[in-house]
Amino acid sequence: MNVELNPIPHGGITAAAGFKATGIHAGFRRNPNKLDMALLVADEPCVAAGVFTQNVFCAAPVQLCKDRLNGEGYGTARAVVANSGNANAATGTVGLDVAYRAAEHVAEVVGCLPEEVLVASTGVIGVPLPFEPYENTAAALAQAGTAHEAGHAAAIAIMTTDTHPKEYAVSWESKDPAFAGITFTVGGCCKGSGMIMPNMATMISLVTTDFPVTGPAAYAALKAAVDAGFNKVTVDSDTSTNDTCILLANGAAAPHSYVADGVAYEEFCTALTAVCMELARKIAIDGEGATRLVTVNVTGAATDADADLAARAIANSPLVKTAIAGRDANWGRIAAAAGKSGATFEQEKVDIDIMGMPVMRAGLPVSFSEEEALRRFEEPEIVLDINLGAGECATRIWTCDFTHDYISINGDYRT
Amino acid sequence: MNVELNPIPHGGITAAAGFKATGIHAGFRRNPNKLDMALLVADEPCVAAGVFTQNVFCAAPVQLCKDRLNGEGYGTARAVVANSGNANAATGTVGLDVAYRAAEHVAEVVGCLPEEVLVASTGVIGVPLPFEPYENTAAALAQAGTAHEAGHAAAIAIMTTDTHPKEYAVSWESKDPAFAGITFTVGGCCKGSGMIMPNMATMISLVTTDFPVTGPAAYAALKAAVDAGFNKVTVDSDTSTNDTCILLANGAAAPHSYVADGVAYEEFCTALTAVCMELARKIAIDGEGATRLVTVNVTGAATDADADLAARAIANSPLVKTAIAGRDANWGRIAAAAGKSGATFEQEKVDIDIMGMPVMRAGLPVSFSEEEALRRFEEPEIVLDINLGAGECATRIWTCDFTHDYISINGDYRT
Repeated sequence: MNVELNPIPHGGITAAAGFKATGIHAGFRRNPNKLDMALLVADEPCVAAGVFTQNVFCAAPVQLCKDRLNGEGYGTARAVVANSGNANAATGTVGLDVAYRAAEHVAEVVGCLPEEVLVASTGVIGVPLPFEPYENTAAALAQAGTAHEAGHAAAIAIMTTDTHPKEYAVSWESKDPAFAGITFTVGGCCKGSGMIMPNMATMISLVTTDFPVTGPAAYAALKAAVDAGFNKVTVDSDTSTNDTCILLANGAAAPHSYVADGVAYEEFCTALTAVCMELARKIAIDGEGATRLVTVNVTGAATDADADLAARAIANSPLVKTAIAGRDANWGRIAAAAGKSGATFEQEKVDIDIMGMPVMRAGLPVSFSEEEALRRFEEPEIVLDINLGAGECATRIWTCDFTHDYISINGDYRT
Repeated sequence: MNVELNPIPHGGITAAAGFKATGIHAGFRRNPNKLDMALLVADEPCVAAGVFTQNVFCAAPVQLCKDRLNGEGYGTARAVVANSGNANAATGTVGLDVAYRAAEHVAEVVGCLPEEVLVASTGVIGVPLPFEPYENTAAALAQAGTAHEAGHAAAIAIMTTDTHPKEYAVSWESKDPAFAGITFTVGGCCKGSGMIMPNMATMISLVTTDFPVTGPAAYAALKAAVDAGFNKVTVDSDTSTNDTCILLANGAAAPHSYVADGVAYEEFCTALTAVCMELARKIAIDGEGATRLVTVNVTGAATDADADLAARAIANSPLVKTAIAGRDANWGRIAAAAGKSGATFEQEKVDIDIMGMPVMRAGLPVSFSEEEALRRFEEPEIVLDINLGAGECATRIWTCDFTHDYISINGDYRT
């Protein structure tokens, strides 16, 4: 799809027309300086689509969203309330009750149906989520706005071990004759740093657009964007109980309703995927303890599934990730990870490059300058290219290096 | 099988009758104080069985062994030569040539056919293996012996990042009328610390027995023992290119040839499995950077495959392993790992115990004393019990905690 996307400086969930947001300290966390509740409100009811964790231990807010959106699918929504500090997971019927009461309360404050409110939570598992903080929803709504600072506050409010908020937005001028000259926008924010692995990659991601789209088309576009973005990130191979990606589409920028299958829809899909991919990269960059973004490109695979198997095995290998932390161009571990992945190939046909430097050709090591390797490891993004020599399929997975800080962060997170 | 196994103090690969061994510094490593070549020689040709890595990047010595033993299977052998410091992996036809020349040279020194020599290597991948050190085989043979110190030297010579040698042997008096009053022995050694994950668990394991067994029966027994032992260990989810487990059975303790399907064979299988399980536990205890052995017991699974999926997901979860390193009874991460594993169960039926302390019942947290938990975490073995409430199947997986030292060891192993 040939569409020119324009990144919006500081753009996030309030970049698209017709959405306001905020982040406040509502009381989910003890520290009064920490924002812990994000509120996203659309001026009008929107098409809503959602993709959720596949974990059997599925948190109460995920169950509520699935109920609202017909499983993993689509429906209608006006508002999303998300909190950090407590995941409302493994909390049983009591947790479900709090989630539903929260939605009811937000609906009352916003002035919509309870069925039009979605709920997301992230934080510690197994601790009862208090209802009281939701009583600050009216205060949140009062300060919700459309400025990028407002979206920024929401992005901050959903952070847990993240070291910085993650936002991205793009706009494009449609070339579809039906929407000539109209500029649409897709913007989103997400949080995620540990317990990051498909399917889904991020614990919470909220995306908004003023593009006009039907429910089924919104869900299809979101599923594809999530597969190309968040589902290609792995920080530690652990899948969370709360992974949630919600898209709200209000059509506010369009003068008339959407025509399916048009050029405009393809443009929208391209933009949505670009936003999800960029947010996914931001998650990998901010992986717990990470000092380097690692991009694993697998080519020459016999099938798409083989490409994914090999790339994921490399990206999840603690030996590969610790080697990168140690600035060690250890192609042997990359080869061994590909070899154990289950992908079909012959070792005599494998080529590996680290940061553009050939280190293996036809299954045999190629001598290289260790000094040059060390120099290239100073880059913030480490690119590994693996050609399996077995076919035409390819994929890309993002991860990060594996450092002492990951151990420190996770060795005493709860206590 | 009701057989009384007697552990042999300091027992290893020379515990069974008719085997001698040694470990010498042959020159594979630079440090002259580090043993780097293990030689195991049987007085007579033995039944030999082997189980090997499933990694596509399969090292030259593994290819040689598979050639000798009809793939992963059985054959005849007199000697095994194993080196540390260099894995002879990703070394192409040159590496294969060195492995075959090594076997030829050892055969000449020992006085057997080249086809009766097996070769194993462990260490750095992708560096050409020199042939010269093998020229010290005669010196090794001269000092090979049957004392447990001799087997101990061999166990030391195959160590890489292992912090101590791993050996175990048991004997039993047969209750089979055909072998009344005869005492048989199974003993083994292994090395393995990192790049440890099924299938196979260890890079090198050598096991000997004086029990009389046919090739097919030896292979069947070894496969079952490896599945119950080494294949249930995971240190870091990485499968090596060199994993090798070789069994030599000489029948030296038996007055006559073996009768299949008898009580004696069942006794032997029990003993062989016990040796492989104990060696496997020793690998987990000595996992790179490990401070705790972690035993994951999954019960109540719908199928054996589900039990394995759930136990392996928990044992491989960096979040679970770092929590244990941090002495944190974080049942939420255990639940989340089981939930992402792909095993079928309902969260409302899950029970979890940490060190015998109930922490989750019916999917909901159970309050427990953090002080008591900290006390129990002082034990050298941490036991996690997870009942999925979905059926009758069960399994046990061994792993270790995940500490700063794992990162340090693997951050600059090669350089």
